[in-house]
Amino acid sequence: VNAPTVAFLGPEGTFTSEAAERAAPDHARRPLPTIEQVVDAVRGGAVELGVVPIENSIEGSVNLTLDVLAFGEPGCFLRREIVLPISMNLLGREGASLAGVKVVRSHPQALAQCRAWLTEHLPEATLEAATSTAEAARQAGESSGSVAALATARVAARYGLVVLAGDVHDHPGNTTRFAVLGRSVHARTGADKTSLVVFFGDDRPGLLLRTLEEFALRGINLTKIESRPTKQALGQYCIFIDCAGHVTEARVGEALRGVHRHVAELRVLGSYPRADALHVPPSTADSDEAYALAGRWYARLLDAVDGQPSG
Amino acid sequence: VNAPTVAFLGPEGTFTSEAAERAAPDHARRPLPTIEQVVDAVRGGAVELGVVPIENSIEGSVNLTLDVLAFGEPGCFLRREIVLPISMNLLGREGASLAGVKVVRSHPQALAQCRAWLTEHLPEATLEAATSTAEAARQAGESSGSVAALATARVAARYGLVVLAGDVHDHPGNTTRFAVLGRSVHARTGADKTSLVVFFGDDRPGLLLRTLEEFALRGINLTKIESRPTKQALGQYCIFIDCAGHVTEARVGEALRGVHRHVAELRVLGSYPRADALHVPPSTADSDEAYALAGRWYARLLDAVDGQPSG
Amino acid sequence: VNAPTVAFLGPEGTFTSEAAERAAPDHARRPLPTIEQVVDAVRGGAVELGVVPIENSIEGSVNLTLDVLAFGEPGCFLRREIVLPISMNLLGREGASLAGVKVVRSHPQALAQCRAWLTEHLPEATLEAATSTAEAARQAGESSGSVAALATARVAARYGLVVLAGDVHDHPGNTTRFAVLGRSVHARTGADKTSLVVFFGDDRPGLLLRTLEEFALRGINLTKIESRPTKQALGQYCIFIDCAGHVTEARVGEALRGVHRHVAELRVLGSYPRADALHVPPSTADSDEAYALAGRWYARLLDAVDGQPSG
Amino acid sequence: VNAPTVAFLGPEGTFTSEAAERAAPDHARRPLPTIEQVVDAVRGGAVELGVVPIENSIEGSVNLTLDVLAFGEPGCFLRREIVLPISMNLLGREGASLAGVKVVRSHPQALAQCRAWLTEHLPEATLEAATSTAEAARQAGESSGSVAALATARVAARYGLVVLAGDVHDHPGNTTRFAVLGRSVHARTGADKTSLVVFFGDDRPGLLLRTLEEFALRGINLTKIESRPTKQALGQYCIFIDCAGHVTEARVGEALRGVHRHVAELRVLGSYPRADALHVPPSTADSDEAYALAGRWYARLLDAVDGQPSG
Repeated sequence: VNAPTVAFLGPEGTFTSEAAERAAPDHARRPLPTIEQVVDAVRGGAVELGVVPIENSIEGSVNLTLDVLAFGEPGCFLRREIVLPISMNLLGREGASLAGVKVVRSHPQALAQCRAWLTEHLPEATLEAATSTAEAARQAGESSGSVAALATARVAARYGLVVLAGDVHDHPGNTTRFAVLGRSVHARTGADKTSLVVFFGDDRPGLLLRTLEEFALRGINLTKIESRPTKQALGQYCIFIDCAGHVTEARVGEALRGVHRHVAELRVLGSYPRADALHVPPSTADSDEAYALAGRWYARLLDAVDGQPSG
Repeated sequence: VNAPTVAFLGPEGTFTSEAAERAAPDHARRPLPTIEQVVDAVRGGAVELGVVPIENSIEGSVNLTLDVLAFGEPGCFLRREIVLPISMNLLGREGASLAGVKVVRSHPQALAQCRAWLTEHLPEATLEAATSTAEAARQAGESSGSVAALATARVAARYGLVVLAGDVHDHPGNTTRFAVLGRSVHARTGADKTSLVVFFGDDRPGLLLRTLEEFALRGINLTKIESRPTKQALGQYCIFIDCAGHVTEARVGEALRGVHRHVAELRVLGSYPRADALHVPPSTADSDEAYALAGRWYARLLDAVDGQPSG
Repeated sequence: VNAPTVAFLGPEGTFTSEAAERAAPDHARRPLPTIEQVVDAVRGGAVELGVVPIENSIEGSVNLTLDVLAFGEPGCFLRREIVLPISMNLLGREGASLAGVKVVRSHPQALAQCRAWLTEHLPEATLEAATSTAEAARQAGESSGSVAALATARVAARYGLVVLAGDVHDHPGNTTRFAVLGRSVHARTGADKTSLVVFFGDDRPGLLLRTLEEFALRGINLTKIESRPTKQALGQYCIFIDCAGHVTEARVGEALRGVHRHVAELRVLGSYPRADALHVPPSTADSDEAYALAGRWYARLLDAVDGQPSG
Repeated sequence: VNAPTVAFLGPEGTFTSEAAERAAPDHARRPLPTIEQVVDAVRGGAVELGVVPIENSIEGSVNLTLDVLAFGEPGCFLRREIVLPISMNLLGREGASLAGVKVVRSHPQALAQCRAWLTEHLPEATLEAATSTAEAARQAGESSGSVAALATARVAARYGLVVLAGDVHDHPGNTTRFAVLGRSVHARTGADKTSLVVFFGDDRPGLLLRTLEEFALRGINLTKIESRPTKQALGQYCIFIDCAGHVTEARVGEALRGVHRHVAELRVLGSYPRADALHVPPSTADSDEAYALAGRWYARLLDAVDGQPSG
């Protein structure tokens, strides 16, 4: 019997690989070179879980992850989100000194996130781009001691590096959000979140507001909203929405059906436990109980209609 | 076997009695002195149908009709609305001349509706109030020839009067709306209307807008809206709403359940054919078919949730 | 020099006459037979103030008052509202006893409001309609002792009557609202209310919701809303709205202008102190200060536009 | 006298450099290595114009551009948008053949956009990431003939390359949007667009819907909306909005002031001509004329208020 496997956007040594370890510490690991390949591996059944960056990542493209889930074949759901604090470290060859660093290499966004520190401590260094923080570390490990990399502390050992300076990122509260993917929707926990994407067939601006009202009218908070052009044609938009609640809640179900009736396509990317585990119960009027009560009231009303079959 | 009976706000000879004849030409007739008695007779099973004025009437109080239906015991529904053109006539004793009229008597609102005509043709006449147009005609019949009444043409014969001048009302397009009452909700015809009353438990102003949005969001037009103080305490309001559609339509049902979840009480006064027989089908997105389609889409989504019993 | 005069819907001895005394205790009094005549007297300058019933009255027609203000010539404003508790009393000839009462006469709504008491204490009495409570009292004064009237306690002395039974109305919290009319809008007091009427040119159902949103978006509570057919044609509606606040408030002004841009006609009937003197200040974001701040921010923005004349 | 200068995100040879040439064909050119440096050069007055990618770019980060404009010092406005069709080409050394290509190098998003073509025509080739399409071309120019680059056709000559295969991108309608930056807001043209960013002080979900309603209520279409976490703390959001119209329009001004009153901060990034030159005039009710008319109506109303200084 094979052990269950988690695929993730590689290589090993990135923040994504760290998220994969948190998501599935007992799974076999399979780093893959692209987000699409991770999604395909999950959807096709080659692996049980997949981990990809989804927001504010410094290694991967948020847009790419969203696009693959939104435009690709269905059958792959977000099952969990993992939020990691982003700690940047300057890694160099053993024995190297900060003063001897002439080149600092990393993913461009990592360089940007450490700009103030670099300006203060290494004003003379040349900044060079790499395709990931782990790739920058690999290159630093193969270079002479004058090349340093901005990367995770964990990757240092892999490439024979040491931390020349820790926590060099400018904004202390930085985090990256990762998605754990699977082939079914996570069961309801009470502190859930739902991600969806809405496609508007024509350029109908009123539909955007209407879609948001479906949620607002039922007291469902939105935590993220992002309109995006679709690939098909200029002026065609879709919206990615993260909202509070689980698809099995009555209020969420009614809102989704309301959106479904009006738009070209509605795709639910998943319902899953919130990273912050915050449980915000719906108001009394938006609870499953209130929906059930209203349903019974309505059934009795229909009983009074001429010719209606009694419920 | 007793013939079926229609009760109506009497006496015979008023516009309401005319509406009762249109509503149920083959029923036995039972004029009753108050709106409450008509409603009680229907609810209690003493008669099959009831007819009362409900809007812009010159004989009866709209408010009273609405209050009896809204605050009284349930079990009495609006089954139909009848709209009559209001034609006012000056009735006098046979042989009387317009020049000899010294007093014009009628219901105060009837006097008001003929003000311009009276000012032009009978500037010297004294205007006197009666409790109904038919009562004014009765009094004119018993008076000397100098007393005339503003009333329907049909009542003239009953009290030995003739029409001294016809169509003397100032606004030609005047109409009155009457309600036909019964013990069940009328079946759906495709050109329907629904009347309801919403009670707000506390003085919560946001609920009014919210209630209207439940209808607007589903493309349901409102044809009447009226907030009213309830009898219980100052500052407590209810709203009477007439909307397009029938309670058995999916969109109307969902809107009603949505209102029900938020308010202290929701009472449906009836669904019934529109007087104008205007058939305005819902948009594609608000049709019963779209609701059914969205329901099936949602059922499939639930099938993908861990631990959900398959539909 | 003539003393200032208050006109009111007569006769003396009604609840309206009592409201007129409260509104203008030091004015000369002029009872007039119709609401229209009161409004005309104010508008034309014949009197300084007018008093008419406006809501839930038992003597006069709410609808009539609203119609005269809404459809008549402009130039007459609501300046104040007076809310009177409605206390019904059974008045009879001096020396008469409750047991001897055979006929109870009053305005039909007054009879309705005392139904339970009459059923319990005078089950055998005949109920007869009069055109006002004061007229009923006058008739009782001229009758033999077997006729009693339901009216105010104050009118008893005028017609040689005494109170046979006090406070005989069924609902203890009953009140009637009266309007005090004048030729200008009352200055802002901080606890104000504004009455307006909106005319929709065509039967455009979306405009109703839109109108309400103009107020809701600015945190302006509505205390009354009532759609009414206009006199011109069936299906043409107008709405009467009472909202919190004064026309000189920035938020009220912006909401009114917003409504004005969309509708066929907007008429402000008045801004005036609330009867309950309740002072509910707007939220910070809806205060006059926030409007002024936003105005200055916008002026600075315009300064950055190419070719804009600097403010 | 120095010629006016346009700064842009370099190097020469990218799509951004092409956009800079279209934006300012007669300006001196200054390629700069980061988006921040371009913005700083504009704001500080070192150059007259700046050009950076802003949406769906394959070279640069949309997010980064938006962040620099939203979170940086004020004083730099979007003055124009340029939309370029994205045409991808496979560039190789002169004399090289498609069959001889072993490595394809480019920006990761460029590789992704040509995935289907590469799978069909170069299934054996290794795909390698570079930091820009121009950098990939430079590397191909220095390599042996087995390395090809995905880049613009224009950059080929610069590095001694030829087009081995043209238009190899999978989706024919791909475009990238670029922003032209300057120190003032563009004058109104009649076919304008406005970009803004709204900061919500607390995590107040209702404010998002409210903000959108300010635009919807005035018939202002939104063409883009994107919520983004701010850098300060998790759970703090801002929204980027593109809407139709110009800040000098009355309806846009009122909407902006309405948003301003409720949010922590509102920053207008610019009003500028739409790339599609589409002129969609506002409805009659939302026109500048309707605003002026409503303003005069309101001024007359204020004249009727006691103690108001006459306008």
